[in-house]
Amino acid sequence: MSLVIVGTMAFDAIETPFGKTDKIVGGAAMYAGIAASYLYSKTKLISVVGGDFGDDNLNVIKSRGIDITGVEIVKEGKTFFWAGRYHNDMNSRDTLGTELNVLADFDPKIPVTYQDCEYLLLGNLTPQVQLSTLARLAHQPQLVVLDTMNYWMNFALDDLKKVLLKVDVLTINDAEARQLSGQYSLVKAADSILKMGPKYLIIKKGEHGALLFGEGEVFSAPALPLAEVFDPTGAGDAFAGGFIGYLAKVKTINFANMKNAVIYGSTLASFCVEKFGNERLLELTQEDINQRIRQFVALSRFDITFR
Amino acid sequence: MSLVIVGTMAFDAIETPFGKTDKIVGGAAMYAGIAASYLYSKTKLISVVGGDFGDDNLNVIKSRGIDITGVEIVKEGKTFFWAGRYHNDMNSRDTLGTELNVLADFDPKIPVTYQDCEYLLLGNLTPQVQLSTLARLAHQPQLVVLDTMNYWMNFALDDLKKVLLKVDVLTINDAEARQLSGQYSLVKAADSILKMGPKYLIIKKGEHGALLFGEGEVFSAPALPLAEVFDPTGAGDAFAGGFIGYLAKVKTINFANMKNAVIYGSTLASFCVEKFGNERLLELTQEDINQRIRQFVALSRFDITFR
Repeated sequence: MSLVIVGTMAFDAIETPFGKTDKIVGGAAMYAGIAASYLYSKTKLISVVGGDFGDDNLNVIKSRGIDITGVEIVKEGKTFFWAGRYHNDMNSRDTLGTELNVLADFDPKIPVTYQDCEYLLLGNLTPQVQLSTLARLAHQPQLVVLDTMNYWMNFALDDLKKVLLKVDVLTINDAEARQLSGQYSLVKAADSILKMGPKYLIIKKGEHGALLFGEGEVFSAPALPLAEVFDPTGAGDAFAGGFIGYLAKVKTINFANMKNAVIYGSTLASFCVEKFGNERLLELTQEDINQRIRQFVALSRFDITFR
Repeated sequence: MSLVIVGTMAFDAIETPFGKTDKIVGGAAMYAGIAASYLYSKTKLISVVGGDFGDDNLNVIKSRGIDITGVEIVKEGKTFFWAGRYHNDMNSRDTLGTELNVLADFDPKIPVTYQDCEYLLLGNLTPQVQLSTLARLAHQPQLVVLDTMNYWMNFALDDLKKVLLKVDVLTINDAEARQLSGQYSLVKAADSILKMGPKYLIIKKGEHGALLFGEGEVFSAPALPLAEVFDPTGAGDAFAGGFIGYLAKVKTINFANMKNAVIYGSTLASFCVEKFGNERLLELTQEDINQRIRQFVALSRFDITFR
């Protein structure tokens, strides 16, 4: 059994009120893979990079025990590049530049050794690539988690709806949930979206935490109140990686485990934003993670007894 | 011992996407008093109304066991009036009209029978009236909770700062916490505000719940995800009333009880928004409240054990 993550690998140039970076390693598959690797040892990536990506960067991923057999290296091509600037509130950003490069022709190839996939994370990518990945797996995984964004709702809604029919969990943010459903109330939005295919829906609300809907229940996970958000890039991907990594570890898919998975996802995301890029994610210990989980418990626990 | 609530009593005309009302009874003291009365039997109001307020409306309050000895009736005057329209998102509103009427000269008088006050809620009012109330109490109550708003930060900041030095708990919303502190991060905002006097700070975030800061700890309370918010008027006051009502009931002031008090406040607020004005608040049973508390437990509880 293994956890397979399909997503981008990229170079990012990031500006925040705290500073700016030259090209640093990024991409959804990187953030999600590193986050998942703290929870589940058999994590495997499917992605594409150019010859410029460099062995050093690939070795960083391998050092986390992540299998990169499925990462295609297009020697004569260039790696996907994204440049963005965050506003002072860190909740909004401008894209300063996007160069698709090798991502433009990305056609996911699934190594034979990946066919034991039981947990699949379809990272934010064109729905067509997400559909191809599913079609090329010899059997349907036990759990498929889909991450997507408003761009695909605007420009590839029909394909996105086809993917939605084949996944178990969808993770999107509150604005995207409203857009996809046409409902302002998140309760009504969740009702609509759960009729589109997924059994569970996670609505990410950034500094306000996340909501999990499914099995007729709702769970509200807090976000850790942070004195400083240094760089929000990759937080959603780290969330998705921590989420599916926890479920791969515990194996049983039910609402109670889904709730814990949301807390693990929130935990990995809370580390991600503490430094630029994936720097903080790469230096964690198991005790760092356990300690933060305890913070989430303290943050949300109360004890009311009726008199 | 008693719980005293100082605040406005008003007529409101409200428009929401669901409909509009003629003049209905409103005001912070009304909402907070009714909410508190479900938790604590010795609740007493200080406010002012005009001759137009009517015995029927006063009898509604008395029917909840609330003492209105301290509600001054200015026979020849008119009751404070507010008209507002909520936008489609229910998170923002326009004030269409404000007539201060008898509120303009409000000078709070404290009946002798109110001098057993141990729990004091200073509802949203001019800081000068809040200071007068405190000065006229024979002894400092065990717990003083202050509600205020951006208006007083803009136009009476010096007086507001004097009140802050004399209270135990401040409740404001996230935008107000940022304005008062000059800090965007709510963690940093809380640090600054707790240096201004209050021992505890509650930051209300509407549909995103509330944060409680104090004793070096943080608690994040969820908001109940609602399919429909019918009328948000008074939700913050119902929150404050439920909050201090719970603490008056349990008597011991510590962080654990404060957390529960935030959940009770959130519970009363969640009922308040279900119908226009205080209609829903007036028809609750103890079992309605207990049932909703159980919903808050289910909404936020998770159980992680380390392997």
